Amino acid sequence: MKIGIINGPNLNLLGVREKEIYGNTDFLTYLETLKEQFPEVELQYFQSNIEGELIDKLQEWGFDFDGIILNAGGYTHTSVAIGDAIKAITTPVVEVHISNILGREDFRKISHISASASGIISGLGLKGYDMAVYYFQQQTP
Amino acid sequence: MKIGIINGPNLNLLGVREKEIYGNTDFLTYLETLKEQFPEVELQYFQSNIEGELIDKLQEWGFDFDGIILNAGGYTHTSVAIGDAIKAITTPVVEVHISNILGREDFRKISHISASASGIISGLGLKGYDMAVYYFQQQTP
Amino acid sequence: MKIGIINGPNLNLLGVREKEIYGNTDFLTYLETLKEQFPEVELQYFQSNIEGELIDKLQEWGFDFDGIILNAGGYTHTSVAIGDAIKAITTPVVEVHISNILGREDFRKISHISASASGIISGLGLKGYDMAVYYFQQQTP
Amino acid sequence: MKIGIINGPNLNLLGVREKEIYGNTDFLTYLETLKEQFPEVELQYFQSNIEGELIDKLQEWGFDFDGIILNAGGYTHTSVAIGDAIKAITTPVVEVHISNILGREDFRKISHISASASGIISGLGLKGYDMAVYYFQQQTP
Amino acid sequence: MKIGIINGPNLNLLGVREKEIYGNTDFLTYLETLKEQFPEVELQYFQSNIEGELIDKLQEWGFDFDGIILNAGGYTHTSVAIGDAIKAITTPVVEVHISNILGREDFRKISHISASASGIISGLGLKGYDMAVYYFQQQTP
Amino acid sequence: MKIGIINGPNLNLLGVREKEIYGNTDFLTYLETLKEQFPEVELQYFQSNIEGELIDKLQEWGFDFDGIILNAGGYTHTSVAIGDAIKAITTPVVEVHISNILGREDFRKISHISASASGIISGLGLKGYDMAVYYFQQQTP
Amino acid sequence: MKIGIINGPNLNLLGVREKEIYGNTDFLTYLETLKEQFPEVELQYFQSNIEGELIDKLQEWGFDFDGIILNAGGYTHTSVAIGDAIKAITTPVVEVHISNILGREDFRKISHISASASGIISGLGLKGYDMAVYYFQQQTP
Amino acid sequence: MKIGIINGPNLNLLGVREKEIYGNTDFLTYLETLKEQFPEVELQYFQSNIEGELIDKLQEWGFDFDGIILNAGGYTHTSVAIGDAIKAITTPVVEVHISNILGREDFRKISHISASASGIISGLGLKGYDMAVYYFQQQTP
Amino acid sequence: MKIGIINGPNLNLLGVREKEIYGNTDFLTYLETLKEQFPEVELQYFQSNIEGELIDKLQEWGFDFDGIILNAGGYTHTSVAIGDAIKAITTPVVEVHISNILGREDFRKISHISASASGIISGLGLKGYDMAVYYFQQQTP
Amino acid sequence: MKIGIINGPNLNLLGVREKEIYGNTDFLTYLETLKEQFPEVELQYFQSNIEGELIDKLQEWGFDFDGIILNAGGYTHTSVAIGDAIKAITTPVVEVHISNILGREDFRKISHISASASGIISGLGLKGYDMAVYYFQQQTP
Amino acid sequence: MKIGIINGPNLNLLGVREKEIYGNTDFLTYLETLKEQFPEVELQYFQSNIEGELIDKLQEWGFDFDGIILNAGGYTHTSVAIGDAIKAITTPVVEVHISNILGREDFRKISHISASASGIISGLGLKGYDMAVYYFQQQTP
Amino acid sequence: MKIGIINGPNLNLLGVREKEIYGNTDFLTYLETLKEQFPEVELQYFQSNIEGELIDKLQEWGFDFDGIILNAGGYTHTSVAIGDAIKAITTPVVEVHISNILGREDFRKISHISASASGIISGLGLKGYDMAVYYFQQQTP
Repeated sequence: MKIGIINGPNLNLLGVREKEIYGNTDFLTYLETLKEQFPEVELQYFQSNIEGELIDKLQEWGFDFDGIILNAGGYTHTSVAIGDAIKAITTPVVEVHISNILGREDFRKISHISASASGIISGLGLKGYDMAVYYFQQQTP
Repeated sequence: MKIGIINGPNLNLLGVREKEIYGNTDFLTYLETLKEQFPEVELQYFQSNIEGELIDKLQEWGFDFDGIILNAGGYTHTSVAIGDAIKAITTPVVEVHISNILGREDFRKISHISASASGIISGLGLKGYDMAVYYFQQQTP
Repeated sequence: MKIGIINGPNLNLLGVREKEIYGNTDFLTYLETLKEQFPEVELQYFQSNIEGELIDKLQEWGFDFDGIILNAGGYTHTSVAIGDAIKAITTPVVEVHISNILGREDFRKISHISASASGIISGLGLKGYDMAVYYFQQQTP
Repeated sequence: MKIGIINGPNLNLLGVREKEIYGNTDFLTYLETLKEQFPEVELQYFQSNIEGELIDKLQEWGFDFDGIILNAGGYTHTSVAIGDAIKAITTPVVEVHISNILGREDFRKISHISASASGIISGLGLKGYDMAVYYFQQQTP
Repeated sequence: MKIGIINGPNLNLLGVREKEIYGNTDFLTYLETLKEQFPEVELQYFQSNIEGELIDKLQEWGFDFDGIILNAGGYTHTSVAIGDAIKAITTPVVEVHISNILGREDFRKISHISASASGIISGLGLKGYDMAVYYFQQQTP
Repeated sequence: MKIGIINGPNLNLLGVREKEIYGNTDFLTYLETLKEQFPEVELQYFQSNIEGELIDKLQEWGFDFDGIILNAGGYTHTSVAIGDAIKAITTPVVEVHISNILGREDFRKISHISASASGIISGLGLKGYDMAVYYFQQQTP
Repeated sequence: MKIGIINGPNLNLLGVREKEIYGNTDFLTYLETLKEQFPEVELQYFQSNIEGELIDKLQEWGFDFDGIILNAGGYTHTSVAIGDAIKAITTPVVEVHISNILGREDFRKISHISASASGIISGLGLKGYDMAVYYFQQQTP
Repeated sequence: MKIGIINGPNLNLLGVREKEIYGNTDFLTYLETLKEQFPEVELQYFQSNIEGELIDKLQEWGFDFDGIILNAGGYTHTSVAIGDAIKAITTPVVEVHISNILGREDFRKISHISASASGIISGLGLKGYDMAVYYFQQQTP
Repeated sequence: MKIGIINGPNLNLLGVREKEIYGNTDFLTYLETLKEQFPEVELQYFQSNIEGELIDKLQEWGFDFDGIILNAGGYTHTSVAIGDAIKAITTPVVEVHISNILGREDFRKISHISASASGIISGLGLKGYDMAVYYFQQQTP
Repeated sequence: MKIGIINGPNLNLLGVREKEIYGNTDFLTYLETLKEQFPEVELQYFQSNIEGELIDKLQEWGFDFDGIILNAGGYTHTSVAIGDAIKAITTPVVEVHISNILGREDFRKISHISASASGIISGLGLKGYDMAVYYFQQQTP
Repeated sequence: MKIGIINGPNLNLLGVREKEIYGNTDFLTYLETLKEQFPEVELQYFQSNIEGELIDKLQEWGFDFDGIILNAGGYTHTSVAIGDAIKAITTPVVEVHISNILGREDFRKISHISASASGIISGLGLKGYDMAVYYFQQQTP
Repeated sequence: MKIGIINGPNLNLLGVREKEIYGNTDFLTYLETLKEQFPEVELQYFQSNIEGELIDKLQEWGFDFDGIILNAGGYTHTSVAIGDAIKAITTPVVEVHISNILGREDFRKISHISASASGIISGLGLKGYDMAVYYFQQQTP
């Protein structure tokens, strides 16, 4: 089973940036734990601050991976193009947010991505990625 | 570990109502599977079509349960009072929706509950309840 | 032929409350006339001020009655859950309003119920109920 | 008893146009049935695609007819002038729509006509005209 | 000096319609007084309930008259096309309203015509026409 | 003199819930003080989390009590039906809020109840109930 | 006959300020012409940049003058208090604007004053004052 | 104990202006009654139609008075600067309105002052001032 | 091949009206060039300032022509009825605008017609008609 | 004559993605046909999923090409920066959309690009590119 | 070189009021430092809580000063009249705000003044005044 | 002292593009002057049309530079991700705009960046960069 994790802008600063909101674990450390927890899953990881590179990667992975976990960061609330990319590919996408985006500023409640994704997990911290892997795993017969 | 599941209006018709959106399993059947899957968790279940009874139950369970999974159905988008109840209690609440509420009608994108809840899982079918139990389980040391 | 009439909040005060808008006949008196006018129809009546009890009754009647006439009163303009209930059942629902809701305050022009109902009769006084029965009667072959 | 029916734009295409929404009976055929059903009522009919001609006819009929049934079609949602005409005349006007305008596009929920009319019957198909005649008939002592 | 008066929908009912708002003088009677008051002005009059005929007349008179007084009635608040016609012609247009449109319903505060007209006189009764003639008269050297 | 106090959802948690906003006195304790302070007033008390039960009680008390003090909690901002109930009864209603609802979240600034009530006292803590009793007392000749 | 003219902020700069919009006559020069034109009218004039002083003057003149001509300048679009003052006095007020406020920026289309005034003359230059005097004169029997 | 009452624009016309809304007692007469009712309170009074003078007075009294009762009249709905002044001073401010501002025009429902004040008493007539004094009195130990 | 061109209000003034926006060729002259350019196409032309006549013509041509080119002028932004007519007929309609309607006033960005048409060509001057004919020609096998 | 075609995000998936909307020809195949159809035009092509690279290319080509055809895909509805780039260059830009963006979701009706472009061709499939080349060709003397 | 500084409402409380936002230096102390720092500039200072007095001063200084630095405080967000005054005078005006008004409440993001001013410096503390003087100084040849 | 200047999309065309708004100096020439003016400051410069590269640079410089001057061009009004980046780093950021963005199109008044930045300097031309350097210099003790 092959699952891709795509992180958007500023998520490379996780563990450094606004710790009271995002916690203090950096993502690569967390990724290791994740791989140990799901040894039977092939987990690939990509991070970029550039909107179009997230689209490139969705297109690259989006036809033969079993699932994509996407945290598009700040692009979540402004990108029509990423939403279009999700609709264009065949791999199901689960959107994850570390903080509860529905409990923060109003502009964070808008998302063209959410409408295209299979579902959303928001506000449950890094555990959200965890749960998304678990979800894809249970989908496979 | 004690976890409560509270389902709001029309969720008693699950498996009967609009199957193309909500699937065709009824909730009580699903609940049995869930209990088998998590034998170490004490799972309690409550369903009501009455907004205020959901509040009563949140208040009753909300000070000594380890977690509450709430699917407030149609009240999700109109109830300030349920959102206030979640803030008033001490047990953490995870909001679950079977369908992807962010991909449906506009009025389903508004939620005073989401802002009060710890997090939200939406669009992942009945699996969402599953994942919420799994989440609470992992929170316990 | 079995038709149910469901009246929502404050309609139990009909004939008492704001007579310049709602007239001075109380509903039960009117119901007698209605039954005489349609002796071949089995008419059942339910009134409640509680939103969830209206949903309970819609669910109870909504799979074997031939028609439901619903005046959800003040819940008309705020309830997503009642609209969901109408979509969940199989009996057709005709929405009736005694006063012309489109000619009153702005907040009375919004209705999640109307979009789910088969149709609406508004502003024609108690005659609206009458006409709804007549409508269901003509639908039957 | 004299009742006028005024149909607005595109209703001359009834039975031809978008049949999944408007059905496949053309209006003149239906009108014959209606006349047979209410032999004691003098029914007059007018259709025009021109907003101002609808106003002309409302003014012509609006002081001595016993009732006017108006389906202003697409002008329902944009015309202030027709709403003004209804207020200017003395004959009561009942607005009829074949489809449930409150269950379609948002711009179809706005109506300056509805606020001026006595009432509205919407979503009950051609039966709506029927019911409006029946309503006027019952108003006469 | 040649001045045209163009009255829109329902103004042919002046003196008949909603007298508490529009007064009880009919326009043709008033027109006679106006002609007596300004014997040196050639006054022409046109009324129609049809939006496009108002445009036709604006185009017909709009290149050699000295002024046009326009009361577009209910079209004031909905017509882009009349506003475009005013911009397309060379004769200056003064908009007149008998009632104070800014003190009535909200939808009467919107006007694409006002932005194209030279100016507006509103709320001063039939005197508004009077004053508009007086205005054009003073503009001529 | 007979005055009723009706408290809505979550006010049964007063003294327990969000103390920094609502203070730490529970309502029943406060009620005792209130009764002592106004020995000549017959004070009755009702609390429910169910919107429709608040309406039931307004209807029950609303024709022979001298005044009703209503704190509808979270329903304040969403209930058209409670506002309708206040208009339907004859006893005057004063709305009380412990916190300053106009200084909090935007959705708390909307109230269909306030428009129906005689007046509002907001932001003055439990003293607000006190002052409302004092107000009704001074109204009696 | 006694008529007051009240000019609001920046109108003391007339003839100096933005001449392409407001023309190049200063108001006091114009006032002289006006007095000559209407020798039988007692014309009083007041200008202030202070909102409250406009209110003071409306209150001072507003019970025994025959008419007040008000150009509230920039306060037109923001002042509720001046609108309240107009409603509080008994002298009729005609609102005048030199430029066509409905053809400029959107925020200039809002006016709480217009709803309280008898009428409005806008966009006809300094002639607007002229016409307002003429209007009041014709009102007197 | 020292309490200041600050009344804004048009409140000097109380008892003269729109009596059906504001009653027919003038404020100075009422003030005498108030002083008799609370002989132990030093009551100071200020009225102005000028927004900035209300701010001046708030600043003058706002550091050593025990309470300020503010009815900012029409400025309530438009003034950010008065709201800022309330936040800048240390004396608590209670906002009073004679009529029920939440039951009138929409623009009267907006208030930057309310968010800064301790609380609001609205719709209870002149009794509102009374109750505000009573409130401050009870705050003092 | 039979193609109809329907021009709406004020387009009869082309070459006369606002030349900086619409150019200085009149439409009939242009039509001749067009016919020469496409000798194999039977081109019919209709212009009216009356909304309903545009609908009449759409209905007349709309079942056997191969294409209709519609420039509804000012009705583009206000007409629901023309949009309905396009949906009611079977001939494909291409909407043409001489100026770039998306680069002008906001109210010109709204169009119920565009949503019903096959496509839109806007801002390319009279060439837009040209290109629409070319488009229909290429559609035919 | 030199014309550039710039395609934005996801247009590299043409013929693969959502075929019911975008058709099943891939763009490079289509480009060949286009080159054959216009042998005298030098056609250059660029596609990127990265917003800023579209800007880079507009700047590179925008001072000496004869025309640019831009389909900015999902960036159409969110990019101010591309709109700024079009205004900054001297080559005219025609915006092309394969589907009818005015007939789809609301957020696809907003475009800062359209306001800067010379014109727009939307909803006419791949033929839109074709027509844009034809347009530029006809512009050259 | 002559530069005027105009401070609006509540800025006389600087150093006293909400120190966490505005700092604890009072303005007159700061003004001394400023004068020392720019000995070659003639600095004049004016503060008022009255909107109209700010306009008076802008008009007085606005034709022969070299620059005006304006911090209109709470009037920034509500005053059309001050914006009009800035446009009416010839001296350039730079708007200064001590706090970052774009990072605070939504109503602080609206400003009719900013659109009229040459520019804005916001969020840089008292240094903003400093920088504005420096700016005007550099403008002089 | 180390200060970074980051310029966003289209600012590489400065001196070429829309000179009436942005002036005719190109940025690199200006940068030389700036370096001469502040010889003691180490000034670094970066420009990109790609949103994500602006974020990359903010992250690279944002932990050890003394200040960053950011002109995000068209991304100012659409980018949540750049605003998040500013909050994620520790170096203070001052936003600079050459033109007065608050005096231009409405969509240029929205900025998620401004809320995250320390402050904003807008409308003062290239001098804005100058003043930002001067500001950072004065911050250092």
